[in-house]
Amino acid sequence: MVSILVLNGPNLNMLGTRQPEVYGHTTLPQIEQMCRQLSEELGISLAFEQSNHEGVMVDMIHASKGVHDAIIINAGAYTHTSIAIMDALASVELPTLELHLSNVHAREEFRHFSYISRVAIGLICGLGPAGYLLSLRAMVDHLGVKA
Amino acid sequence: MVSILVLNGPNLNMLGTRQPEVYGHTTLPQIEQMCRQLSEELGISLAFEQSNHEGVMVDMIHASKGVHDAIIINAGAYTHTSIAIMDALASVELPTLELHLSNVHAREEFRHFSYISRVAIGLICGLGPAGYLLSLRAMVDHLGVKA
Amino acid sequence: MVSILVLNGPNLNMLGTRQPEVYGHTTLPQIEQMCRQLSEELGISLAFEQSNHEGVMVDMIHASKGVHDAIIINAGAYTHTSIAIMDALASVELPTLELHLSNVHAREEFRHFSYISRVAIGLICGLGPAGYLLSLRAMVDHLGVKA
Amino acid sequence: MVSILVLNGPNLNMLGTRQPEVYGHTTLPQIEQMCRQLSEELGISLAFEQSNHEGVMVDMIHASKGVHDAIIINAGAYTHTSIAIMDALASVELPTLELHLSNVHAREEFRHFSYISRVAIGLICGLGPAGYLLSLRAMVDHLGVKA
Amino acid sequence: MVSILVLNGPNLNMLGTRQPEVYGHTTLPQIEQMCRQLSEELGISLAFEQSNHEGVMVDMIHASKGVHDAIIINAGAYTHTSIAIMDALASVELPTLELHLSNVHAREEFRHFSYISRVAIGLICGLGPAGYLLSLRAMVDHLGVKA
Amino acid sequence: MVSILVLNGPNLNMLGTRQPEVYGHTTLPQIEQMCRQLSEELGISLAFEQSNHEGVMVDMIHASKGVHDAIIINAGAYTHTSIAIMDALASVELPTLELHLSNVHAREEFRHFSYISRVAIGLICGLGPAGYLLSLRAMVDHLGVKA
Amino acid sequence: MVSILVLNGPNLNMLGTRQPEVYGHTTLPQIEQMCRQLSEELGISLAFEQSNHEGVMVDMIHASKGVHDAIIINAGAYTHTSIAIMDALASVELPTLELHLSNVHAREEFRHFSYISRVAIGLICGLGPAGYLLSLRAMVDHLGVKA
Amino acid sequence: MVSILVLNGPNLNMLGTRQPEVYGHTTLPQIEQMCRQLSEELGISLAFEQSNHEGVMVDMIHASKGVHDAIIINAGAYTHTSIAIMDALASVELPTLELHLSNVHAREEFRHFSYISRVAIGLICGLGPAGYLLSLRAMVDHLGVKA
Amino acid sequence: MVSILVLNGPNLNMLGTRQPEVYGHTTLPQIEQMCRQLSEELGISLAFEQSNHEGVMVDMIHASKGVHDAIIINAGAYTHTSIAIMDALASVELPTLELHLSNVHAREEFRHFSYISRVAIGLICGLGPAGYLLSLRAMVDHLGVKA
Amino acid sequence: MVSILVLNGPNLNMLGTRQPEVYGHTTLPQIEQMCRQLSEELGISLAFEQSNHEGVMVDMIHASKGVHDAIIINAGAYTHTSIAIMDALASVELPTLELHLSNVHAREEFRHFSYISRVAIGLICGLGPAGYLLSLRAMVDHLGVKA
Amino acid sequence: MVSILVLNGPNLNMLGTRQPEVYGHTTLPQIEQMCRQLSEELGISLAFEQSNHEGVMVDMIHASKGVHDAIIINAGAYTHTSIAIMDALASVELPTLELHLSNVHAREEFRHFSYISRVAIGLICGLGPAGYLLSLRAMVDHLGVKA
Amino acid sequence: MVSILVLNGPNLNMLGTRQPEVYGHTTLPQIEQMCRQLSEELGISLAFEQSNHEGVMVDMIHASKGVHDAIIINAGAYTHTSIAIMDALASVELPTLELHLSNVHAREEFRHFSYISRVAIGLICGLGPAGYLLSLRAMVDHLGVKA
Repeated sequence: MVSILVLNGPNLNMLGTRQPEVYGHTTLPQIEQMCRQLSEELGISLAFEQSNHEGVMVDMIHASKGVHDAIIINAGAYTHTSIAIMDALASVELPTLELHLSNVHAREEFRHFSYISRVAIGLICGLGPAGYLLSLRAMVDHLGVKA
Repeated sequence: MVSILVLNGPNLNMLGTRQPEVYGHTTLPQIEQMCRQLSEELGISLAFEQSNHEGVMVDMIHASKGVHDAIIINAGAYTHTSIAIMDALASVELPTLELHLSNVHAREEFRHFSYISRVAIGLICGLGPAGYLLSLRAMVDHLGVKA
Repeated sequence: MVSILVLNGPNLNMLGTRQPEVYGHTTLPQIEQMCRQLSEELGISLAFEQSNHEGVMVDMIHASKGVHDAIIINAGAYTHTSIAIMDALASVELPTLELHLSNVHAREEFRHFSYISRVAIGLICGLGPAGYLLSLRAMVDHLGVKA
Repeated sequence: MVSILVLNGPNLNMLGTRQPEVYGHTTLPQIEQMCRQLSEELGISLAFEQSNHEGVMVDMIHASKGVHDAIIINAGAYTHTSIAIMDALASVELPTLELHLSNVHAREEFRHFSYISRVAIGLICGLGPAGYLLSLRAMVDHLGVKA
Repeated sequence: MVSILVLNGPNLNMLGTRQPEVYGHTTLPQIEQMCRQLSEELGISLAFEQSNHEGVMVDMIHASKGVHDAIIINAGAYTHTSIAIMDALASVELPTLELHLSNVHAREEFRHFSYISRVAIGLICGLGPAGYLLSLRAMVDHLGVKA
Repeated sequence: MVSILVLNGPNLNMLGTRQPEVYGHTTLPQIEQMCRQLSEELGISLAFEQSNHEGVMVDMIHASKGVHDAIIINAGAYTHTSIAIMDALASVELPTLELHLSNVHAREEFRHFSYISRVAIGLICGLGPAGYLLSLRAMVDHLGVKA
Repeated sequence: MVSILVLNGPNLNMLGTRQPEVYGHTTLPQIEQMCRQLSEELGISLAFEQSNHEGVMVDMIHASKGVHDAIIINAGAYTHTSIAIMDALASVELPTLELHLSNVHAREEFRHFSYISRVAIGLICGLGPAGYLLSLRAMVDHLGVKA
Repeated sequence: MVSILVLNGPNLNMLGTRQPEVYGHTTLPQIEQMCRQLSEELGISLAFEQSNHEGVMVDMIHASKGVHDAIIINAGAYTHTSIAIMDALASVELPTLELHLSNVHAREEFRHFSYISRVAIGLICGLGPAGYLLSLRAMVDHLGVKA
Repeated sequence: MVSILVLNGPNLNMLGTRQPEVYGHTTLPQIEQMCRQLSEELGISLAFEQSNHEGVMVDMIHASKGVHDAIIINAGAYTHTSIAIMDALASVELPTLELHLSNVHAREEFRHFSYISRVAIGLICGLGPAGYLLSLRAMVDHLGVKA
Repeated sequence: MVSILVLNGPNLNMLGTRQPEVYGHTTLPQIEQMCRQLSEELGISLAFEQSNHEGVMVDMIHASKGVHDAIIINAGAYTHTSIAIMDALASVELPTLELHLSNVHAREEFRHFSYISRVAIGLICGLGPAGYLLSLRAMVDHLGVKA
Repeated sequence: MVSILVLNGPNLNMLGTRQPEVYGHTTLPQIEQMCRQLSEELGISLAFEQSNHEGVMVDMIHASKGVHDAIIINAGAYTHTSIAIMDALASVELPTLELHLSNVHAREEFRHFSYISRVAIGLICGLGPAGYLLSLRAMVDHLGVKA
Repeated sequence: MVSILVLNGPNLNMLGTRQPEVYGHTTLPQIEQMCRQLSEELGISLAFEQSNHEGVMVDMIHASKGVHDAIIINAGAYTHTSIAIMDALASVELPTLELHLSNVHAREEFRHFSYISRVAIGLICGLGPAGYLLSLRAMVDHLGVKA
């Protein structure tokens, strides 16, 4: 059975309460629930993690090698500053999809640059929680999985 | 019935023959066919256009006002250079989704900047033809359409 | 009889409906009407054109040679990106006045730069439709025309 | 009766003798005379001032509050360097029109940037002394004054 | 028989009258005539086109695929701004030679950058109409054609 | 009773021994002691924390929501590099004061930029340990607390 | 008795009426009154000055040598543009504290740079009129004055 | 007996499997083994650590004070982004040598800048695992140790 | 008799006490005395002025027209920030020599740029008070004066 | 008889062996031979030189004054770094043609800038050894020589 | 027998007397002596050269082809400015190690950039004369030489 | 007897014929003659050298150590590009004066930057051949020589 890691970065645990005008009212557990439901439909295994720690995220990415088949990553603020996470993703050589809730390219200048983009197959952003579901579909499609 | 305009910019008519290592082997008519099939499933009306002319694209965007409910735009090279298309999108005030076949943020520096992003709700890139189908789903979801 | 070409660029056909908080409620035909009335008063001939196509604007500028005595140009978004229009204006060697409805220098950074300014005698911006009438007066004054 | 302050900055007292190939042969008193004549026609009150001192210009702008209804400012070289004058204009909250004799955007790079533009409704430049008269007309028009 | 497309961009139709101190007195039809004569000598087929429209140039480049063996392009102002034309050239995968009448690298800063250079085998500039003849010879030489 | 979190970032645990010519001889426990004494005088509750871990700081900021009424943050080196901490501060929506022992704006160029400043009400820097006491007074004043 | 000069720069005389959403409703005389009261409490002598003129500010700084023991300067707009005031402060070699009512580092980019910071011991900003009182306390503390 | 800390940063635990075309096939334990063997020969004590966490690396550097005599640091990706680690190294005031397996100056632009270099005595890079041995020799030589 | 204006800018009245390690111990009156003595030897008339006010310097430059034959200007800090003084010098069209006591090009980056240089015939800097005497000699030589 | 100097810069003596995938397999003596043969046909005198020394190239350019009628220069790496060679070319005032074997504008960023271009009539690059022959023809054409 | 060229660039002949606080007291002949001794131990042949001339260094690099097996280069100031030396190193295709006595990355900004790094396998800097010996060992190790 | 080296860089041997509108009609031997005459008057020994070779200039500077007491250097184009000459000047630790015939700061942007300025006591430029004589006087003055 195909297994996908959805990895969430800093401040995503605050979803639902954090600046709802930017990030919406859905909480991360609600998103996880939506993802689990779709994973079941798609017949895939899902790991859904969150950390505010750059180093923990690096550890989790390393640990995904040989365990998961692909990574969907919403690296939050570390998207723009972490070469360590980019290098970690490169080191495990799994197909990676970059995800953001808001349209980072329509926000502050410093959110336009992404280290993750350099090692990702693609990017989905600005579509809110729906982006998680689209990302799962896209990755399953990319892996050629049969539901 | 909800109506969506999928607008393709310069060189996308060359798809399938143009640098297949970057853009894949699927042709634009094949993508249109895939989109038409999905639109039928989703119960929406689809307009699917392509032009190599910045001015024609501006005209088409203007014409979409009062005709379509949303725009999915793969502006190709004009993504990075056309303030005119950005202004046209702003002038019709329809929800717009930015789309690219390749992961533009992982390519040459000048493909990282997008005028379209400033007026789009979100962005899907790097997922090849599948990105068109995801964009349609995302936009239908955004519009709250019932299939 | 002196003849002046007023040339309008992309999206100006949307005036009145496009972002009225920036561009106001007057339509381009209304502005044309105001210009025609003033031209009559001033005893000059007026050509009033609009195009969303960079190439068409270049063609129109070329065609003005030997036909018109001066050009008033509101190049819209092409102001900031079109070396081709700048070169066209230089090639016909007619006195040119740059015009904008909004105060472009008080808006986004990328609207501060103008290729047109390099070949224009002057600039009027931020005065809305009234700017068209002032431009006509200014150009007539510049040409030393007797009404 | 409506009252407008025309405020001239550094070196404008040298007009007529200073680099006539750039600034023309008309002197500032002659321009003042032209402005006074037009003001009479338009039925408005005119204050016409000049100073080479940034601080004096700030003082004059402050003093205009409650005395004048609008400001037309040719800030000369301070256009490009004075945040103090920009802040002064913002502090009195009067409609302000930016004016230059020459087309500053066609000259040296450092004359392309204007702090004044950030707080002005619009800009007229490159039209020589005629620009003063157009500015008065534009401001009267902006204020909705009946002559 | 080998076939070469010579494609001319915006404002080149104004040659001979446009700023002759920069571009000389020879007209584009005269250059075409010179090229036709040399093509006959060299035993090659020649297409000689001009357009002021970026989109038309993209269309013409697409149309050259399977018709011509090489492209000599003087893209004029679009050299510095058109990613669309660069992408079009890349999409047809024909050997391309970049050509300019004037020495663009000795002119304004913004004429030093060329998108065309990224996909061209070489560049000839600053040699006036003679550059067209040298380009034809160079391309024939590159293709290994026997006259 | 009002409660304030004083949060110290990386290397501040080394105070007193670390480069005393820049940071002085007072240790962090001594500063904490000074703050506790003043808090008592002001009748407020004080939490005083330090961490070298960006992720731990993000966690602590999240935990302050609903517990503390304001945050005084000396983010040390993370001031200049951590978008994650800036986002965390924005997510809890507590009044935040930025604090530095040294005058960061008089040191190396890379210490002039602060992500914290974007979400802070104000900044106190260069006043050494006394800055902590001033920050407490300022925040109490800001909250309108009665001692 | 210790003597401190509080020097206020351009537009600060407009406090209370100038953009109250940025600068608040307290006037400069009211701030002076608050400062005089605190100075009495602290047992120090206070000079409180304001000028809109860069040159006058330079003169006042020079005059403080041998008269005052320290300078608290809110240089307003000159903070970002005046090397002359920075050099004046350096020339009198008195301890200097930089002060701003608003959080300049959270405003426009051009307000982030300060020449004053290069010669000041520290900076207090964003705390409104309360910042004046904190500055007096901080400077008295810095001078080791006993109240 | 002299003691040296060799501190390895993020992703170095993946050595041997991570992009072997860049980093080679030797694992970090193998490198540690090589270092231990050389340390014995040189008669020095060796601590060999690795962490993916910036904060843990800061903690380890702090802990080296009074325990080790020198630090050899391969900070991996944190080399280019961590002011915190640079400040930590500065705070313990031990001689530090910067080490990289690959030639970072021949790779992506963002790997050319190093915060570590500002506080290191020197740099060895591009020599693979052999660089660790050379670093030990160099540091022993720097400390004037007799084997 | 030839007449030369030596114009000194801000903070030069502090010479002798201001940062003597940069500017030396000689006072401005002593330099004036040295200049007067040499002027007598050279048989020229000398005006020697100083002001801390940009506007006063502009006034003085204007007043020099028709009175003096040349200007030697040590504009101090205004060298790097005053377009107004540069424009004033251009407006009087007198030969101008730029002078600095210290070697500004070996100091802070912001002292490397000079607006004065754009309108000066030459520059002498870094030679201390002796630079004034050399400047007088150089200007007399430039004017072709016979002593 | 017309005489042309072909001057080759650093590393061109390595042609044929140096990176043949960039520069081809033809050696410099072979190119010289091709040039000599064409010169004979064209009835011109040819000097063909190479040096790895910037100073020697400057000397050779100086020596060409009064000896040769034109210069064709392939300055190699000095193209991008040598103001001295640019100044030397300007000093002898001979028509100069810039030549490169490879298309420097399609290579590393630092090869896009050319000091030579500022003083050359034109540029031929990317055409390999054939570029030498085209350059000779172009220069003969430019000089109006009859073969 | 393996042969290595150690090539020293400009000003290294001044070692021992030149700024000893930066470069130490050891002279270049002493370093050569140390290298010769180690070479003997390692059983390799050593060439040790120095030149202040960029062109001579290019010549020496060319001459090393077929004579030496590797190059250790301390290019001194040419490290930062010489594309010619970089191209020369690339042309001979020998393994090259970059060497500096001081830690160039901790010095002036302009010493951080290296053309040499682009073609070197690695870099050793900041270790003084000991760096030469480490470089020899590293290169021998790289070549897989048996001592 | 005091001895001064006047060192001239590339292209200065062309003086008198090279661009006389920039550099004047006096030749370098004539300037040398003027310098020799003044040196005799001043009772100093003079060495007057010129080279077009950066390396030769470095050699000459090295050779001046222990032979001359000061250096006056007109490094020509190498002023802006040669770190090697700057390092050479620093290595001999003689007082150095920078000299240019033209006002480099009023010419092309790339002539505004000087490596020489970083190690020179001062700069004289724009005064033509007279600058040499002023430099000699200034250096003699600096050395405290009695004529």
